[in-house]
Amino acid sequence: MKESLKVIKIGGKVAEDEGQLQKFLHDFNEIEGKKILVHGGGVTATQIEKKLGIESQMIEGRRVTSKESLDVITMVYGGLINKKLVAKLQALGSNALGLSGADLNIIQAQKRNVEPIDFGFVGDIEKVNSEALKDLLEKNVIPVLAPLTHNMKGDLLNTNADSIAAFVAASLVEEYNTELVLCFEGEGVMNNGKLVTRMNKLLFRYLEGHEIIKDGMIPKIELGLAAYQKGAKVRITGVSGILNSEAGTIFEN
Amino acid sequence: MKESLKVIKIGGKVAEDEGQLQKFLHDFNEIEGKKILVHGGGVTATQIEKKLGIESQMIEGRRVTSKESLDVITMVYGGLINKKLVAKLQALGSNALGLSGADLNIIQAQKRNVEPIDFGFVGDIEKVNSEALKDLLEKNVIPVLAPLTHNMKGDLLNTNADSIAAFVAASLVEEYNTELVLCFEGEGVMNNGKLVTRMNKLLFRYLEGHEIIKDGMIPKIELGLAAYQKGAKVRITGVSGILNSEAGTIFEN
Repeated sequence: MKESLKVIKIGGKVAEDEGQLQKFLHDFNEIEGKKILVHGGGVTATQIEKKLGIESQMIEGRRVTSKESLDVITMVYGGLINKKLVAKLQALGSNALGLSGADLNIIQAQKRNVEPIDFGFVGDIEKVNSEALKDLLEKNVIPVLAPLTHNMKGDLLNTNADSIAAFVAASLVEEYNTELVLCFEGEGVMNNGKLVTRMNKLLFRYLEGHEIIKDGMIPKIELGLAAYQKGAKVRITGVSGILNSEAGTIFEN
Repeated sequence: MKESLKVIKIGGKVAEDEGQLQKFLHDFNEIEGKKILVHGGGVTATQIEKKLGIESQMIEGRRVTSKESLDVITMVYGGLINKKLVAKLQALGSNALGLSGADLNIIQAQKRNVEPIDFGFVGDIEKVNSEALKDLLEKNVIPVLAPLTHNMKGDLLNTNADSIAAFVAASLVEEYNTELVLCFEGEGVMNNGKLVTRMNKLLFRYLEGHEIIKDGMIPKIELGLAAYQKGAKVRITGVSGILNSEAGTIFEN
């Protein structure tokens, strides 16, 4: 039987809130088997951009990653948040290793086409180095992934943390009994204040059509569906649902 | 015969100057055998502190690492400079891996005593995880070390990059034919405009006594002497001297 692997993504609001983070790290530390942590950090990045006088550019409601923005993101995601998580996990006895996509060439991406819209230094994932991740996991190392990739041409690229978690989980399904856990500030997918406990493609299209699922939840579920398709277990849940495999919205066929 | 290992430290002025950095990385990439890169980054950190309105505290001419300063250093050293170096090395075909002392518990340190002077979040190295470094080197991974350590209690600590390079080199002398190369903006140790080509303890004490060696060069040579004592070859040189094993100031008995 394959060993279990949990790929857990925490959003900026968890990684950046001291209280929530402590609770999360405590629970994360309790998880048995292999594990990978993926984190965001957008709130801190936006605050620091503001302080540095860098204007956030938006096109059609989506952020553009300018050269200056990329530097801030590299500092905040790759440095501040990543290294703090690693130091805290080490203090709990977990042998954490912080990684951007450039480190060990873990995640190679392509800079997004400037047509039709130039979003700047944004990377779409091309390849996960699952061999290198497996080598680390087999040594009981806990990879802590910042949402940064690279293009093998020397450029770092800004890549959505949900995408990183979903691609990483999908890349390791052959080796491990892999579960992708997309953890965020809510409880799971909601409909009129009530938790939607199960999710599949058909239900997603239905709820999206009725505008019950919208905004940031759409790509999150799409990524979850893609990872599920590839053979991963998938769950969207809150910080308090990490240790309860039935908490949140569970993907099924 | 033991395989060769070069532990090369580059100062902020090399890591932060695009032109010098390109030349350095080109040469670094040419080095055969195992290698470890250690970098600084103080100039950028000071610039960003200024922009963020964080005042640099100094006591007796030495920097105090406040909580805010530590955050900036973690961003700049652990994120911006480290990840850029890694991405550039990957583009050159070197399998680089960026590390703070917390990652894989590579360098454990003790927060410096607050008596007689409280320098804040500064760490004095206690232990280098040479086993983990060896594992990486044996896989032809190139560790890129940021000047950050941790105390295994969850705190990151600011640690001098020369110290990191010297301790790391000393920790690996049993395994490899190790050379410590402290690379900086000068050519080597100078006396009245002339390069001092050889250095040992006696000459150092003499030149220090005559105030020919002073300021930042004193701890640099002391660290070099300590690493030499432990069995490492040691050289202080400029960026252009990386590939020439006779360039700069060479330590001897």
